[in-house]
Amino acid sequence: MFLFGRDDLVARSERAFAREREVRFQDVDAAGIVFYVRFFDYFHDVWADFLRASGEPLDRALRDGRWGAPLRHAEADYFKPLRFGDPIEVSIVRAHVEPTEVTVGYRIGRPDGETVAVGQTVHTFIDPGRFRRSEMPGTLREAFGRIG
Amino acid sequence: MFLFGRDDLVARSERAFAREREVRFQDVDAAGIVFYVRFFDYFHDVWADFLRASGEPLDRALRDGRWGAPLRHAEADYFKPLRFGDPIEVSIVRAHVEPTEVTVGYRIGRPDGETVAVGQTVHTFIDPGRFRRSEMPGTLREAFGRIG
Amino acid sequence: MFLFGRDDLVARSERAFAREREVRFQDVDAAGIVFYVRFFDYFHDVWADFLRASGEPLDRALRDGRWGAPLRHAEADYFKPLRFGDPIEVSIVRAHVEPTEVTVGYRIGRPDGETVAVGQTVHTFIDPGRFRRSEMPGTLREAFGRIG
Amino acid sequence: MFLFGRDDLVARSERAFAREREVRFQDVDAAGIVFYVRFFDYFHDVWADFLRASGEPLDRALRDGRWGAPLRHAEADYFKPLRFGDPIEVSIVRAHVEPTEVTVGYRIGRPDGETVAVGQTVHTFIDPGRFRRSEMPGTLREAFGRIG
Repeated sequence: MFLFGRDDLVARSERAFAREREVRFQDVDAAGIVFYVRFFDYFHDVWADFLRASGEPLDRALRDGRWGAPLRHAEADYFKPLRFGDPIEVSIVRAHVEPTEVTVGYRIGRPDGETVAVGQTVHTFIDPGRFRRSEMPGTLREAFGRIG
Repeated sequence: MFLFGRDDLVARSERAFAREREVRFQDVDAAGIVFYVRFFDYFHDVWADFLRASGEPLDRALRDGRWGAPLRHAEADYFKPLRFGDPIEVSIVRAHVEPTEVTVGYRIGRPDGETVAVGQTVHTFIDPGRFRRSEMPGTLREAFGRIG
Repeated sequence: MFLFGRDDLVARSERAFAREREVRFQDVDAAGIVFYVRFFDYFHDVWADFLRASGEPLDRALRDGRWGAPLRHAEADYFKPLRFGDPIEVSIVRAHVEPTEVTVGYRIGRPDGETVAVGQTVHTFIDPGRFRRSEMPGTLREAFGRIG
Repeated sequence: MFLFGRDDLVARSERAFAREREVRFQDVDAAGIVFYVRFFDYFHDVWADFLRASGEPLDRALRDGRWGAPLRHAEADYFKPLRFGDPIEVSIVRAHVEPTEVTVGYRIGRPDGETVAVGQTVHTFIDPGRFRRSEMPGTLREAFGRIG
């Protein structure tokens, strides 16, 4: 299982795929900052946006039974707290492709460029009917390759 | 569609089906009280517990394709705010049965008996394969009948 | 407590405040359709967008301790199931203003105009420090008045 | 930052702190298995239970402004999918204590002993008023020390 170094994710890639969003009212926990688990929701949302933008939307893949991409590993490093209403940019900054697996690196930053958190997820591609490993679709291999 | 009166739900039934729980860290929102939407999660959890206790667990029904019970209506009235760590009791206090539909009344209270919120959900029973109305299983009709 | 008629919410207002979004992967439940509770999250998100667009963002109001707007009541009627990837429009279609309270009516529809669900929430305005009723800010009274 | 080896977490500790639960209807995603992000909710719930059982409930600590424990790092490794209704045991199996920080290791298993997932979180103890590092309460240092 390939993993990126943490510093590698902080240094923002020029080829990043970025989405802007705002911290929602219900993302905050009883300590007044964004619940750490919500960062993974943010990662997943940009992952789904990337798949769609790459011409391989996950909803179509599941409906057609062509491929699924369950998680093998997920991690996040938290540098700064986020609060309700904070504007953030969630980006895919790195991707490492293997025949049946992809490691995706994420970064969450503020408009002024400060890094709030980084993370990575390792997805295994499967044939959803049999829940067995299968090759990643070529379109995605190319799309992740362009992120690098 | 049958609905209970709000006062009817506040007055606690002797035949209520009750579960104790505590407000979780992540149930609270940026205003420091439980996010109003979480109350519906609490209602759904006690509904699922009731189905299991009645011998008709929802997971088995879905796996076997025997029945589903999507919502037609849901509502809640909020009387008092809840905070992280508050112990609560979530109860099914009323049920009104029709051949293909059930209206379920809920109450959330504190240990001292104070009512925090009430609510109700109207579920339509369906054949999950065709997504068409079907009769409620007899076991459930009896179980809801005992709540009354 | 003022409530709208259900048919009133289905008939789309010309003055609606609308936001487009898509059903997320994690909004779906074990029955394969959007979990009924998520519809209330959709309502809350468009409510927060409306407050911001009206010049009274909720995050600023809470940070400054000027006002809060906890729920007294929430309800939804479900007409059609939603699935992962479905594009939807979530709108505020009605608003009824009283000095310390507002009833907000919502509609969720598909791009072809089909109504998927409607709902309404009743918010009480409070002084967040004392958790006591207070007057709604004038900006919001006007903004809700324009929806009507 | 101290982290456990993955194999270390799979091998169940004799001193584990364990809680049984079931996969909820709303924990499942559009692929029909538990959404990977929910595993972190499961970790957080057993962490909160452990704090309470150790005499240092998080709700009291936050209310009294004595300590908070935001995350610096979180990770999970997924071995098997979980489905709606699956009974699971979520355990704290390891803990590594430093003066202002604790690394907590988790394991999720089935009743037959099969490991479904493992994970770890690194919490920094802070003075919640100033959001600055502070020493972990002695009670917790001892409680985590007993897990080892």
